[in-house]
Amino acid sequence: MILEVAVLDIKPGMSREFESVFQEAAKIIATIPGYINHDLQKCLEKSDRYLLLVSWQKLEDHTIGFRKSPQYQTWKSLLHHFYEPFPEVEHYSSALKPN
Amino acid sequence: MILEVAVLDIKPGMSREFESVFQEAAKIIATIPGYINHDLQKCLEKSDRYLLLVSWQKLEDHTIGFRKSPQYQTWKSLLHHFYEPFPEVEHYSSALKPN
Repeated sequence: MILEVAVLDIKPGMSREFESVFQEAAKIIATIPGYINHDLQKCLEKSDRYLLLVSWQKLEDHTIGFRKSPQYQTWKSLLHHFYEPFPEVEHYSSALKPN
Repeated sequence: MILEVAVLDIKPGMSREFESVFQEAAKIIATIPGYINHDLQKCLEKSDRYLLLVSWQKLEDHTIGFRKSPQYQTWKSLLHHFYEPFPEVEHYSSALKPN
């Protein structure tokens, strides 16, 4: 399992609209093969900052399966104009060892 | 519920030792009142980078209950020397709306 991680800084004053539109966009990503789940968290210390976490079965489900899909064009048109600066996206895998 | 988030950049070559020591340190944090769970994730794009996620019942369980505890001194002595630079810690709360 792979965790996609992005810190999203939203243009000032647009957070409420972003949250509303994100709810629609989330329905898109949930249809992509390999999608497991997602979480959107709002920062307490910095206004207009969010953390997006998306779990994928494997890296390519995000980097190829989603990003090369027609659905990604819709995702982009819904969400990308909210971001300032454009976010860096990283991928992680668990570093926890079984006890 | 509050999510503590820290990107941890480990000094080059020390990641394996960090992971081993973290496993011990994790037992400490799990004893703190308000602790719910934690996750440690390793970055695929940037070597020696980790993401620490800790869920707490409320903000003060981390910022006061843990950081003012004797256990925090042990946590610090186990882990802080691995970090370069010293990480910024942020707190988040869910921005997901019920469907």
